[in-house]
Amino acid sequence: MKLSTNPTTNKQYIVPDELDDSDGINRFLESNRSRKIIVVQGLGFVGAVMCLVCANAPGNNYAVIGIDLPDENTYWKIRTLNEGVFPLTAEDPKIEQFYREALRKNVFYATYDTYAYSVADVIIVDINLDVQKHSDPQMELLGYDVDLSGFKKAMMTIGDNCKESALVLVETTVPPGTCEKVVFPILTEKLKLRGLSAEKLLLGHSYERVMPGPQYIDSIQSFYRVYSGIDERSAIATEAFLRTIIRTDEYPLTRLGNTKATEMAKVLENSYRAMNIAFIVEWSRFAEEAGVNLYEVVRAIRMRPTHSNMMLPGVGVGGYCLTKDPLLASWSRQNFFGSDSALRQSEVAVAINDKMPEFAFRHFNLQFKQSLKSKSVLFLGVSYRGDVGDTRYAPAALLFDCFSSAEAKVTLHDPYVNFWEEKQLKVETNLDVALSCHPTVLIISAGHSLYKGAQFVDALLALPPLFLYDTLGMFSESELSTLQRTHTVKSLGRGDI
Amino acid sequence: MKLSTNPTTNKQYIVPDELDDSDGINRFLESNRSRKIIVVQGLGFVGAVMCLVCANAPGNNYAVIGIDLPDENTYWKIRTLNEGVFPLTAEDPKIEQFYREALRKNVFYATYDTYAYSVADVIIVDINLDVQKHSDPQMELLGYDVDLSGFKKAMMTIGDNCKESALVLVETTVPPGTCEKVVFPILTEKLKLRGLSAEKLLLGHSYERVMPGPQYIDSIQSFYRVYSGIDERSAIATEAFLRTIIRTDEYPLTRLGNTKATEMAKVLENSYRAMNIAFIVEWSRFAEEAGVNLYEVVRAIRMRPTHSNMMLPGVGVGGYCLTKDPLLASWSRQNFFGSDSALRQSEVAVAINDKMPEFAFRHFNLQFKQSLKSKSVLFLGVSYRGDVGDTRYAPAALLFDCFSSAEAKVTLHDPYVNFWEEKQLKVETNLDVALSCHPTVLIISAGHSLYKGAQFVDALLALPPLFLYDTLGMFSESELSTLQRTHTVKSLGRGDI
Repeated sequence: MKLSTNPTTNKQYIVPDELDDSDGINRFLESNRSRKIIVVQGLGFVGAVMCLVCANAPGNNYAVIGIDLPDENTYWKIRTLNEGVFPLTAEDPKIEQFYREALRKNVFYATYDTYAYSVADVIIVDINLDVQKHSDPQMELLGYDVDLSGFKKAMMTIGDNCKESALVLVETTVPPGTCEKVVFPILTEKLKLRGLSAEKLLLGHSYERVMPGPQYIDSIQSFYRVYSGIDERSAIATEAFLRTIIRTDEYPLTRLGNTKATEMAKVLENSYRAMNIAFIVEWSRFAEEAGVNLYEVVRAIRMRPTHSNMMLPGVGVGGYCLTKDPLLASWSRQNFFGSDSALRQSEVAVAINDKMPEFAFRHFNLQFKQSLKSKSVLFLGVSYRGDVGDTRYAPAALLFDCFSSAEAKVTLHDPYVNFWEEKQLKVETNLDVALSCHPTVLIISAGHSLYKGAQFVDALLALPPLFLYDTLGMFSESELSTLQRTHTVKSLGRGDI
Repeated sequence: MKLSTNPTTNKQYIVPDELDDSDGINRFLESNRSRKIIVVQGLGFVGAVMCLVCANAPGNNYAVIGIDLPDENTYWKIRTLNEGVFPLTAEDPKIEQFYREALRKNVFYATYDTYAYSVADVIIVDINLDVQKHSDPQMELLGYDVDLSGFKKAMMTIGDNCKESALVLVETTVPPGTCEKVVFPILTEKLKLRGLSAEKLLLGHSYERVMPGPQYIDSIQSFYRVYSGIDERSAIATEAFLRTIIRTDEYPLTRLGNTKATEMAKVLENSYRAMNIAFIVEWSRFAEEAGVNLYEVVRAIRMRPTHSNMMLPGVGVGGYCLTKDPLLASWSRQNFFGSDSALRQSEVAVAINDKMPEFAFRHFNLQFKQSLKSKSVLFLGVSYRGDVGDTRYAPAALLFDCFSSAEAKVTLHDPYVNFWEEKQLKVETNLDVALSCHPTVLIISAGHSLYKGAQFVDALLALPPLFLYDTLGMFSESELSTLQRTHTVKSLGRGDI
């Protein structure tokens, strides 16, 4: 018997052996006879919210079935969704509102049964495609693989079940070339094996730019979209569909020439961002070595319009996308298009970013100059980004590993996370409670707004002297001076401060 | 007997054996008794124009002496400047205007005699500091050195001659740390050897952002400046001086904490630009391999405000700064600050950019599919950048080498260059003449405005069918279609076109 546990409520569900939910699906179809059926494959950070956006599309024309695998990690989500509890904690009030509305109208259902694909007019692919990195204990990136087998299996399941005229819309971030070289061949072959025509199939690609956070829904519904089709018919069908769910009046769609182009656009924009972060990460190490305050340098340079996008120093990059998308691109170049060259700059960017928490820790030690053994260390923030509750590949995790290896007693605070899945640790969400634990060292490890501004500075000033390490530049120069009257303050990337 | 030749006029000058120009300098001083004396060290692309800006500063308080070495390469500049001919051809009409005005008022003089330093109130250092790259024939960057000996010698000459209270303002792009670790120790030691006090010396650093081109003067006079001093007195003196020559009302000065910070700011901003170019250069190779039009991809991505600075594809980067400044930075990190890490991303950027012309040539061959032997190839543009006449480290030079090696008969056009110094070749400046030579292949190799727009397209359409290779994206998609009716057209970075 396999159990699947909701990590927030600890409620447990028995994963069924018999994978038949046709009754549930049929009941849902019964009450949605006049609606088109959208199936969203994958109920993660993108898919779950994509379901809500489709179910609340203007015109009330869609009934949405979310589908995921019935395994220990995901089965609880399916059950929870049908029980009226949305599986993601999010700061966007629209999430709850859209979810309630979808349930009230009975236009949303979650399942694990692949039978759902057979009733779908539109199938949206929102599953993960991961990169397997190989790094040494110093977090030096030694190599990586892209394993397409899970993704291929998901495409086979669609091909084994879908209508011959379905629109399959891939939103997953994939190595450029995947729709042409993987998805389309699998779907057409499967349809042919079922004696169906592959002529009617519609295959589109349009990537999301989802940002979990206070504008979670808007990051899907009200944002620029790029799309393409495997052929002209598919591109037209994809556009027509996107027009019904995206605010295209304010955020016009952009059609690109082929699916490789849209696939490339997604990994290109994320590689660009990862590179720009890596660039300043590397220079902030140099600035520390040279005793230069990189914040003032970057602010001076940003006065030039051509340089206004330059980033500020920080502890590196986290999240699901920027840590792997540059590698997906480089892998594609070599494996799908036979180039003998990697995308060196994109690979170097990932390597630099991955190593930043370890540098930040070494740098901390140079300043702290004491053993960390049994010292009480409080981390403020475990998510990968300010004001979101997403902890995937957070730099804080690597920093945590460093402090743990040094046998520090680490406690955790995050206003948006009560359980740190990756570390299987409880997280305090109340800041006052967290601060009252008398830490010797306080690390600002995620850029939440709560860790910024006069009120927070006052709260810190009320604490007994401690070692304050700001890895993200949360304080202004004058706040740093104020804090230095009470505490030992170190701000990464500021040279002597 | 050594001769120094003006490459534009071919006029030759005998380099004097006896290095005494004290009479010339004294006569100049005689007529400028009420003025402060500024000596500008170096009469290249920065120094020559810096002289003009200082000589034309509001208030008419400065008399400017430009000084350079009396060797074959530079002596003709000194003579030419005193004969009333400015040694740089520039598209900025203010250059000629400022030069005439300076001569009319007799507030500008050029010399080679180090005696000039002894009469200077302000010494501005505008000499070169080069990087020696080691590359193989495929333009793979194998390593590089920074040789400080020439720069150190120049500082010693200042220290041997300057007043003890002079303000020495370094504008040269240097490895961060140079003012502190090289300039200041040399100057103070030299002053002490002369029995003078080093206490009064003022040393500032403020980098220029000179852009040879139609806004040449404005790029000095009307642009943001960052400055610092080796100590508080020096910073104050530097600021006071800059206020008299820069339009600080519109372009406020920014003071940074120390000279390392301003030195770092300069190489950081150029590394940032080199990296962003290298990034898109590398992706344009990928796009070509994958058959993706990168122009449409980048345009789609740029709709995001966070990505608006993304560059468009091209043949790489040239010019004096972006090809070396990232290496100056990385060298400094390792040699001045003892880091065991290079600035990897900056080094990779230079390596990628350096190799781009060779890739562009390989890519050309894949499309052209014929032997280039004895084929007539016309290069449009030999400068490193659109609408400037500066050919230093132009990508066109490497592209030219590739075509020459393939035994093509290459002819050259550039509206701003009549003699290509690096290649010692004559360049046609009249476009009609250049186009009338019946080229088999026409390469757009620099982004001059002349190679853009309806009139140029019409001129191309009037030619017999040829192979047109646009390395810089000068044509719109519709222009490309039009051109394809007559010519075989290939535009780098557009995939199938």
